[in-house]
Parts: sequence; C-alpha cells; structure tokens
Amino acid sequence: MHRQGKRAFRRTEQIPSAGAKSLPQKYFISQEVFAREQAEIFSKQWLLVGHQSQIPDAGDYIVQQVIGESLIVIRDKSEEIRGFFNVCRHRGTRLKEDACGHASAIQCPYHAWTYGLDGRLIGAPHMDEVPGFDKAEYSLHAVNLALWEGFIFVNLVPKRDGWLSLEEWFAPLNGKFSHWNMSILQPAKRIEYDVRANWKLMFENYSECYHCPGVHPQLQKVSPYDSAENDLREGPFLGGFMKINPGKSLTVSGNACAAFVGEIENLQRVFYYSIFPNMLLSLHPEYVMVHQLWPQSPERTLIVCDWLFHPDAFTRKDFKPEDAIEFWDMTNKQDWHVCELSQQGIASRAYKPGPYSSRESIPAAWDRYYLRSMEREARS
Amino acid sequence: MHRQGKRAFRRTEQIPSAGAKSLPQKYFISQEVFAREQAEIFSKQWLLVGHQSQIPDAGDYIVQQVIGESLIVIRDKSEEIRGFFNVCRHRGTRLKEDACGHASAIQCPYHAWTYGLDGRLIGAPHMDEVPGFDKAEYSLHAVNLALWEGFIFVNLVPKRDGWLSLEEWFAPLNGKFSHWNMSILQPAKRIEYDVRANWKLMFENYSECYHCPGVHPQLQKVSPYDSAENDLREGPFLGGFMKINPGKSLTVSGNACAAFVGEIENLQRVFYYSIFPNMLLSLHPEYVMVHQLWPQSPERTLIVCDWLFHPDAFTRKDFKPEDAIEFWDMTNKQDWHVCELSQQGIASRAYKPGPYSSRESIPAAWDRYYLRSMEREARS
Amino acid sequence: MHRQGKRAFRRTEQIPSAGAKSLPQKYFISQEVFAREQAEIFSKQWLLVGHQSQIPDAGDYIVQQVIGESLIVIRDKSEEIRGFFNVCRHRGTRLKEDACGHASAIQCPYHAWTYGLDGRLIGAPHMDEVPGFDKAEYSLHAVNLALWEGFIFVNLVPKRDGWLSLEEWFAPLNGKFSHWNMSILQPAKRIEYDVRANWKLMFENYSECYHCPGVHPQLQKVSPYDSAENDLREGPFLGGFMKINPGKSLTVSGNACAAFVGEIENLQRVFYYSIFPNMLLSLHPEYVMVHQLWPQSPERTLIVCDWLFHPDAFTRKDFKPEDAIEFWDMTNKQDWHVCELSQQGIASRAYKPGPYSSRESIPAAWDRYYLRSMEREARS
Repeated sequence: MHRQGKRAFRRTEQIPSAGAKSLPQKYFISQEVFAREQAEIFSKQWLLVGHQSQIPDAGDYIVQQVIGESLIVIRDKSEEIRGFFNVCRHRGTRLKEDACGHASAIQCPYHAWTYGLDGRLIGAPHMDEVPGFDKAEYSLHAVNLALWEGFIFVNLVPKRDGWLSLEEWFAPLNGKFSHWNMSILQPAKRIEYDVRANWKLMFENYSECYHCPGVHPQLQKVSPYDSAENDLREGPFLGGFMKINPGKSLTVSGNACAAFVGEIENLQRVFYYSIFPNMLLSLHPEYVMVHQLWPQSPERTLIVCDWLFHPDAFTRKDFKPEDAIEFWDMTNKQDWHVCELSQQGIASRAYKPGPYSSRESIPAAWDRYYLRSMEREARS
Repeated sequence: MHRQGKRAFRRTEQIPSAGAKSLPQKYFISQEVFAREQAEIFSKQWLLVGHQSQIPDAGDYIVQQVIGESLIVIRDKSEEIRGFFNVCRHRGTRLKEDACGHASAIQCPYHAWTYGLDGRLIGAPHMDEVPGFDKAEYSLHAVNLALWEGFIFVNLVPKRDGWLSLEEWFAPLNGKFSHWNMSILQPAKRIEYDVRANWKLMFENYSECYHCPGVHPQLQKVSPYDSAENDLREGPFLGGFMKINPGKSLTVSGNACAAFVGEIENLQRVFYYSIFPNMLLSLHPEYVMVHQLWPQSPERTLIVCDWLFHPDAFTRKDFKPEDAIEFWDMTNKQDWHVCELSQQGIASRAYKPGPYSSRESIPAAWDRYYLRSMEREARS
Repeated sequence: MHRQGKRAFRRTEQIPSAGAKSLPQKYFISQEVFAREQAEIFSKQWLLVGHQSQIPDAGDYIVQQVIGESLIVIRDKSEEIRGFFNVCRHRGTRLKEDACGHASAIQCPYHAWTYGLDGRLIGAPHMDEVPGFDKAEYSLHAVNLALWEGFIFVNLVPKRDGWLSLEEWFAPLNGKFSHWNMSILQPAKRIEYDVRANWKLMFENYSECYHCPGVHPQLQKVSPYDSAENDLREGPFLGGFMKINPGKSLTVSGNACAAFVGEIENLQRVFYYSIFPNMLLSLHPEYVMVHQLWPQSPERTLIVCDWLFHPDAFTRKDFKPEDAIEFWDMTNKQDWHVCELSQQGIASRAYKPGPYSSRESIPAAWDRYYLRSMEREARS
C-alpha cells in the first residue's frame, strides 16, 4: 500500500536502490514462471492459512484452498490443530464442501467412510469383506501444520533434511511482536478480494508509500507518506514503521476504534511487515490487519484480509471495528486498482523494466529475495 | 446410481473384486486421455443419440451434438432415418440451427444451396455457370446410423474390415428386453444435466448401490441397496436387477405411475444396464429411463435423460409420469453431486487409487472394459 | 455483406473464379494461423483505428485496443495526432483507463509520473535523487500514425528499409474518393459487434452479394443483388459499385436520410471497398459507413461500425441518420449471423473447401491476397 520510502526518512540509513529496476515482463504474465512459483515457492514454503481463533473448539474446522489443493484444518479432541487433504482414501471424493463448520468425525458423503478428527479411518462399510484390507493404511493424508503467534501455517512438503520448522523459520522475529498479543486476538471481520493482478504486484505495492499521495488521499491525512523507517531491509521479512499523526488513528473518523491490543509503547507508529511468500502483517495500536495472498494465475490473485482485536475490546463501548475496516477496505481497493492497472500495462510489448525511485528500496529488496528464492529452489 | 452390490446378494455368485482399485488420476483429469477417448472410443463406437419416436414423420429431424460435431438426424421420404453432418458443401455453413424441427428439404441459410432429405444436392444457384461443377459430387456427408429396439445410434467411422454393425454389436442382448416393447415407447420428458465431473464417474456411480444408503434416502425406502443380482458381469454391457419392495414403485408417491410397458413377468424388479460407451438403460415395469452421456471435457459431461412410456399409457387416467420423473430427477441430482465431489478430490495431488469394496465389482468390471477399449483402439 | 457477383453483371469483364475454392479449415480455427496473422499481418500493416473528427481539439484522445495492445491516440498542442503505448515508463502501469477523454498532460495514476501530449516525460517525483536518471530517456513509446482521407491509421513496426508509408500504401487510390469529402465528415453513430466468427469470413461475406436474396430481403428491394460492377479486382483494395434503384436510398424508409456528402455524380450507385486488412468502406450518396475489424481469436472478431455525414447535414431538417443506421444495423446483423453459422460448420471434420460460384470472384481474390500476405510476411 504505502509504508516504504519509509527508510528515505533517515537519509543516512538509506539503502540505495542503485540502478534497481522493476522485474521483467515474464515474471508477471508467464504461465511457466507461475507454475515454477507454485511448485518451488508455494509448494515448499510455510503458508499462512488463518488464525487459531477461527476454530476455538475441538471439532471446529475450516476448509482452505492452497495452490489448487483443498485442505481441512481442524482442531482435534486433544485441542491440537491438524491439517488434512480434503480427499477420501476410498475413491477420492471431496469430504467437506463448506468453508467452515463443526464435526465430531469426518464422514465421506459418497460411501460413508468415516475418519476421526486425528485422520484415522474408523469406519468403512463392507470393507471387512475385502481380503487384506487394513484400516490403518487408509488414514487421511496429513499436511505439516504449525502455529506462530496464533497464526496457522501449513507446509505441503514432507519433512526432510534441510527442512525448516515454522519455529526455525520465524526465529529472526522472536519476541518482536509480543506487545501485540497476536496469539489471543479475535477476528472481527474478513473481506475477500478477487484481484486481476499478479501477486508480486501487491507485495511491491505494500512495500512503498511513494504512491500514497496520489492513490490514498485519506491515508495521507493521518500518516505522512515520507515518514517511513524500516528496520528489516533484506530477506523474507521486510518492513518497519510509519508515523501516525498525533492523536490520530487509521480509521475513517481518524479516532481510535477500540481498546489497544497490548502495552503499545508508541501510539504514533503503525508497523507494516511483509512475510514471504503470502502474508502482509499490519500492526496498529488497537488492531492487527493481516492479508493472505493466494495466486490463482499469473494475472489473478485472491486476497483474504482479516481484522483482529483484543478479546476485551469487543465488550467495550468504544468498540467500533467498522471504523478501521471501512478505512482499510477503501485503501485496499485503491491499491488493488493500481495493481490491476500495472498488470495491464506490463503485459504490453512496450513494457520494459523501469527504474525504482529512491523511495522504492523495499520493493527492490523484495524482488531480490523473490529472485533468490526462485534460483535457490530451482537448484535444490 | 445404485444397483450394484447387486451380486453381493448371492454370495456364491460373487465375483471378487480381488484387489481392484479405482482408476489412476490421469483418467479423470488429463486432456490427453480425454482426446484419446474422443478419438479412439467416441469416434469409433456406436453412440446413442435418441429414440425413433422423436421424429415420427418424414421430414422430422433432430440436431445432435456428437463429440464436437453437429449431426442432422432426419426421417426421409421413404421413412428411413438418416444422419448427415450439419455442414453445407459450398462454404461449410451450419445448415440447421434449431434442436429439432420439420423440413421438406434442407436449405443452407447462406447462399440457398438445397439438399433433399436423402442428402442429395438438388439446388445450387449460379453453379451451372461454373465449368465442371457436378451436383452429384456435393451430397451432404453422411454418417452411419442404425436402430436397436427403437433407439437411434450413430457411428462416425466409415465401414471397413472389422467394423461391427449395430446388429452385430447388440447380438449378445438379442431378445433380452423384448418384454419392454422399447421400439414403440413414446417420450414423456427429457431433462439435460450439465455435470462437472468426468463421464466415467457417472458410469462407475451407476454401477453400484454401495453409495445408496447415504446418498439416496428416498430410493432406499422402495429398493434395498443390497438386493442387486447382476447377470452381465464383464464386457460392454453390465448390470442386472434390484428388488422393488412389494407393491411399491420408483416414484415420489411410491405407487405405479402408468400402465405397464409390456407383459412384465416380475413387478418387483428394476433392471439397470450400462451400455458402453454412452448409454444407461433403466427398465421399470411402467417406464423406461435412458441416459445419454456426452463428455465435454475431462471435467464436464452433458447428460440427457429421457423417460419413455407405452403409447397406450398416455391416454389413461392413471398416467402420472411426473411421479417417476421427479423421483429420478431428484435421484439423478443426488448422484451427479457426489460425482462432482469425486471429480474435485481426484484432482488432488493426494489422490491415489483406492480399494473397491466387495459391493463394487461392476464398477471394477466397467473400468476393465474401458481400459481394454483404450488399449485395443490404440493398437488397431 | 453483399455487392459481389458485381462483376457478373458484365459478362465480358467477368474474372473467372476458375476452380477457386473456399480456404482450408485451418485458416479459420487454428490458433497457430491466428498467431501468425497477428504477428505477420496485424503487427506489420497499417490499421484503421478511427477518424480525426473523434478528437477535434488539442488534448482530445481515444484509447484503442490493437492486437492486444492499448494505444493512446491523442491530438497534441500543435494539433498533430500522435499515438503512444498506454504504458508508463516507470513500472508499466496503464495510463488511461477510459475509452476517450481530454487531458492537458498524461499522468500515471500510480506514482504520478507525468508526460506531455507529445509523449515527453515532464514530471517524475523523487527521481532526481536517483543518480544518472535522465527524463529524456523515458518518453512514452510512440507508434507510427498517419492520416488518409481523415481516417487515422497506426502501424506497430518501426520504420525500416522497405517500410511503406501510409501515403505510399494508399497511392493507388489517390483522388479516387475525393467526391465524398471523407476528411471533413462527422460521426453520427458507432455500433460495436462481438461476432463469433473468424475475421476473414466477414471480408468474404462483404465481397459478394450471392447471399443477398436469402439473407437481406430488405436490401434486395433497393439494390439488386446482381447489379455489381467491380473496378478493383486483385490486391489489397477490392470492390466497386452496386446499383441503387432510382429514387431509392439504403435506409429503412427507402428515402435519402441526409444532405449529400459531396458532389456525387451518380446517385444510383453505392460503392463497397475492402481495404486490407481491417477496413470496410461503404460510400453512399449521403453517408459513409466504415467498419473496423479486430480479430480477437480464431473464432471471434470485434467489429466497430461508424456512420459519417457531412457537417452541414447535421443542422438540416431532413437529417435522419437513424434511417440509415437502423437499416445497416439490421443488415450487419444478418451478415454476422451467417458468418457465425459458417464458423460453426467449418470447424467440423466434415468440412472441405467448397467451390466458389461465378458470383464469388472477389472473395476468391481476397483469399488470394491474404494467402500472398501470409507467405510474403513469412518470407521477409
């Protein structure tokens, strides 16, 4: 959206984008590049799929589409959250059709094969008549699943040498966000966006505020486009903070819309971090906004945006979550629109990579990490 | 839909499915397999396209889509039914746009070239000015067409060595269905279904009733899922009968909905046969239901379902065809839905062929015949 | 639409179509042929995109889609019309979204880079902080643009040896249409048609009136189908005139609908010319109709139809443009419909090229020029 140029504020710290240019055309329109991204990045990295607050009780589940796969993310009877492919082991039937729900067991709608919440096959009519059939061989196919700060991540590759656990992956951010109490926050709203642009354009867009004066007049009033200071400037985690004008909040009214999520040191800062490859994390004093990005094709991305608040906030009189939600829904749409315009122009034979400005060092850093990921994965 | 497990009723007769598993993924999602099926099966086998009662009079015609081709099936002046490609010999224009109609001749809407009902070019304005032009060389392209028990079948390959006439193809079923008087039945209703599943899933679904308890609660009440007895267990024709509870009928009300179609020996039996590669034949005491299956893509099938009754039934007071039609429309949709769920799950990277139960020997037999067809055709 | 057979009128002049047949199937359905046409014909030839009357004032612009590219056609401050790729030089963003408008400068909606009407970059915030950045290197990418008789044409190839200017291309038609005053005409109406047929079918259709008796009963009443006389019979420009019955006009009422466009010698003639590869030019005594053809895929074409009148006509009492527009909208749709039927039939395995009649010598000539263009371009 904005929030870069961030580092331009302190000239001495500035990372020069020294000749950096936007990515070549193929990265935005090639079906082949897209397939490689799906295979080498999205099939191998930890991917955000939600927050534990969405499935508080044993038997609660969500169904999540992940790179063409449908996954059941379910809390089992021991309160552990597990992930399974949404595919019956008998003849492959989709098990759960709805986006979320509650179940005491997972039963196939076709021939009634039944699985426990831990994935074990516990019922299969007439299969005892089949010589050699052993239920133990027909548990649901599991996916790796782990939590970070209350957020649920999945990873489709089997564990193996060199495989990073979610804990290892997030080690560099250890304790960094503890003030925001993210693991206990509760969701107030989800909005999904069908954006006709390559997913990388949204990451690049999120990583700079060079576009804010023209694209986000409302945001400009409460947070100066040139106020960014970034502390993470290379690698899979990028970003920092921007200033909020004194007494203001990023809401339609300009006022705080809820109790603070924690012991926030400085109320005049909003933090924006991109987490490779599918998470945007926006930390406000009184709420946390998080985007999931799901590439659908080179030219299309599904974006899921959640707003989370402190559980105590919900019962207080000053709780006006729509004040923040409407502000960001508007701002999101302003961003998606210019990303869609970029997608259109980049597809032209006239497009050539253009020069990043001094206020676009974070997009340039994101591009570098992306390119290294594509190389690294291709090599391994 | 149901109607297998059929043979499970008499344990001694049971054909073991001994390790049989559902087909590998590629058979349900591969564009290449689909193209091979279209070229090697649907372009070479006899295909059901309708019933002669649809075009009773000379000049009556239907337009039928067959593997991407539009065919005119028309009754000529000598009452013979003929099939032609719906393509003008001048500049290729589609001749007939409507799904059915009546014509005294076939005239092209573009430049008015005119063909007799037997396909001969009988009028071509100004073509006499073209040196060497001979009308006799520009008859409509014909397709092989023949009748079996009143049903119209077409075959797109030219006659050649080893080519089976429709009579030869159906020889094994000679006289088997004479009680049902199929050649004189009259249509009461047609319903078309656009199903988002591979065509083979509907054949497999039709071939077993293992799924009936969960999927078809209404059917369960009038016909026990485990009552099947199959007499055709290998080859292109598969099936047998299931029991109907005494005094019941497969209708919404549970009562018979029309006069019987013939001298039916046993009113407590409904017969279900699949006829390779595109016909499902369901024989009830008082009506015949027939499905045409038309694969559109690996993931999509058009299904055309007709209900036929005895001509005398239409004028009687006890004629309530909608009682059967609504019953089966509901049951059809229950089936298509689970087939669509199977299509979704089978497309997953987690899908592996799963074990057929003892009540799925007919789907296993259907799969075997299908695989032999693909091999045989590929060799020839 | 019609208007061939034209030459059949004077038998002595008749160009025999001597065994000519319609084009083979691949030219109408092959994605590969389509790609070659786009690359070798539409990317290299002069293409009609509009008429100068659409952008009368400095700053007026239209946005035109040309073979997948979006172009800005704009009148600059010196009144010259220029064409630019609609792509920002910074990060490739689409600059103009609307189909037409007025602007004093071209500003990118993303990061506010700003270009003059002549394409020069005149504003780029913060880019002065980037070492070595030079605005002069980041003008908009221009396309060749020129006018013929007031019509705007673009050409996407850079000038090079053997490149034909628009003036050179149209030299054979020099002065031929001066009576119609085309450069000063004013548009009264535009209608766009989304036609599900290959673009060549519309050229072939426009080039003969053999189809008129059956397809255009209304046109038949005012202009005999066999009255054509063609003066351009080979090459990129093809056509001639057809007779208008005395006192009649090609309008719904049959009467003239406006003041004449110029000093028309013979009011009983309507001239029809096809201009390779995307223009159909129809010259009536009181109006000029012009079609742009834009192939979208092998099976789909966007057709843009404009009706132009003399500027003086608009203020007169006898000005009834809808009388001509409705007549041709009806006639257009009759033509597109039979073209769509041809597309359907030609896609059949039964289609083979069929014989052109003696009244289809101009379609045959158009096919010849088309085939030579494909060869010539492929060679060069």
